[in-house]
Amino acid sequence: MIIVVRLLLAEPGFGNSKKSGRKFTMPCGQKTNPLPATGVAAALCYYSVIISLLLRAVAIPKKTRDRILAAALELFNERGEARVTTNHIAAYLGISPGNLYYHFRNKNDIVRCIFKQYCAHLTKSFTPATGSASASPALWFHYLDAVFYVMWEFRFFHANLEDILRRDPQLHAQYLEVQRRLEGHLQAQLREFNARKVLAVPEQDIATLAQTLTLMVSCWVSYRRMQLLQPCIIQAVLYEGMVRVLILLKPYFHENKGLELDQVLAHYHALAASPGDPFHK
Amino acid sequence: MIIVVRLLLAEPGFGNSKKSGRKFTMPCGQKTNPLPATGVAAALCYYSVIISLLLRAVAIPKKTRDRILAAALELFNERGEARVTTNHIAAYLGISPGNLYYHFRNKNDIVRCIFKQYCAHLTKSFTPATGSASASPALWFHYLDAVFYVMWEFRFFHANLEDILRRDPQLHAQYLEVQRRLEGHLQAQLREFNARKVLAVPEQDIATLAQTLTLMVSCWVSYRRMQLLQPCIIQAVLYEGMVRVLILLKPYFHENKGLELDQVLAHYHALAASPGDPFHK
Repeated sequence: MIIVVRLLLAEPGFGNSKKSGRKFTMPCGQKTNPLPATGVAAALCYYSVIISLLLRAVAIPKKTRDRILAAALELFNERGEARVTTNHIAAYLGISPGNLYYHFRNKNDIVRCIFKQYCAHLTKSFTPATGSASASPALWFHYLDAVFYVMWEFRFFHANLEDILRRDPQLHAQYLEVQRRLEGHLQAQLREFNARKVLAVPEQDIATLAQTLTLMVSCWVSYRRMQLLQPCIIQAVLYEGMVRVLILLKPYFHENKGLELDQVLAHYHALAASPGDPFHK
Repeated sequence: MIIVVRLLLAEPGFGNSKKSGRKFTMPCGQKTNPLPATGVAAALCYYSVIISLLLRAVAIPKKTRDRILAAALELFNERGEARVTTNHIAAYLGISPGNLYYHFRNKNDIVRCIFKQYCAHLTKSFTPATGSASASPALWFHYLDAVFYVMWEFRFFHANLEDILRRDPQLHAQYLEVQRRLEGHLQAQLREFNARKVLAVPEQDIATLAQTLTLMVSCWVSYRRMQLLQPCIIQAVLYEGMVRVLILLKPYFHENKGLELDQVLAHYHALAASPGDPFHK
């Protein structure tokens, strides 16, 4: 993904989205209105298209094994992982339980395979950027869209994280390893933002801030579920979480980046206020 | 508690802790070394003593009903609420299950009564301060000690919050009401800190910051449990959480409050690094 960021930054047409005036498709099919032709808005539109294409590519699994994983992910997200059995998954796909067990030993085995997909997205999306790309607003969109993607596509995981980890020590160990790596990447990225005068985070607070950001992303879904008498996680709720992530960083932004930040915030605020709800349609 | 804060602020000997050089007892019996005789350190020592006395007062229940509640709280905190039954509580106290059921209908009834204690502490401790007290570091210690108290004394609740709320809609509704009230108080306090030039939080970010602070306090225990292969919540872990709460506010502090903040942070950093572990002794 980071290569895509760099290619986009080098593309001559980058920043001309206003000319076409077309509507772009956001992740999970959400429509957005065209934005002013700033670098920020253009970056946003391009990322929306890229992520949308990636989602569509992910959405057409062909092999039975892939179909089982896709169906499990869909059911876990819609009904909650704890309430979905291997029999539910087989019935949903119209295959026999025996066929499912040919590919997976049990439900934990399926969860582990989905966790691998989750890790692959994290690894692709959160490798720290260096050089001129690291000072570009395009990178903020890249990260925020990636945060949204993992929060939304794997929302069952964040909604029931402690239970899932507690019953599978092997998965738990892998999760901790990934978290450690991610926090390290995030710290490196914050230092790079500091060096490029995007942010000014005191060195002694970088580790804590990185941890707070990962806490916010990890806990947001379950926190918001607790705030609702009828738990119902919709995309707007996750966009609210992303706005909070940005607000956490806001006091550290250099003044000359304030306008760009305001545009980014306004965009995600609008998405957070959107009534679109493909999860419970 | 807020009355105690004001009495302490008015007390003539306030700020003379260095003279005596005595060791003060922190909540749950933790010893601390004497600190320099600044107003900040003195405030800290006084609050430690007050909270310690309060804890001791709470720790000597006399009636059977109170003994049941105290035992339940202790067992929930030590073993996890999900693993403790009414029979465990009765056996722990050496009373018959019938005697327990004379006082409480079931475990949920006990949890609700403990929740009332939790609410009472929240209401006492987080009423917004106004006037000169609101610009004093004594107030930060008051709030931070109160945060520690509810996080530590009711850690079972934060460790298993979603489950507990989900199975008891009446408790859930009460929890949401308390959370709303708390966030309102916190917003009012942030505005008061702004007015007193302790903080400079932009008005449009106050609601979000208040929510992020309550999220941090609500989710810290379960987040940290997920970071440990063997879940074991010790006091130091909760002090880590309080340091994170302070770091969230740090970028908003006025420059002339920087030194005081550094002292507060250093104190809680030291507690977070302390090996004291009365929970798993």
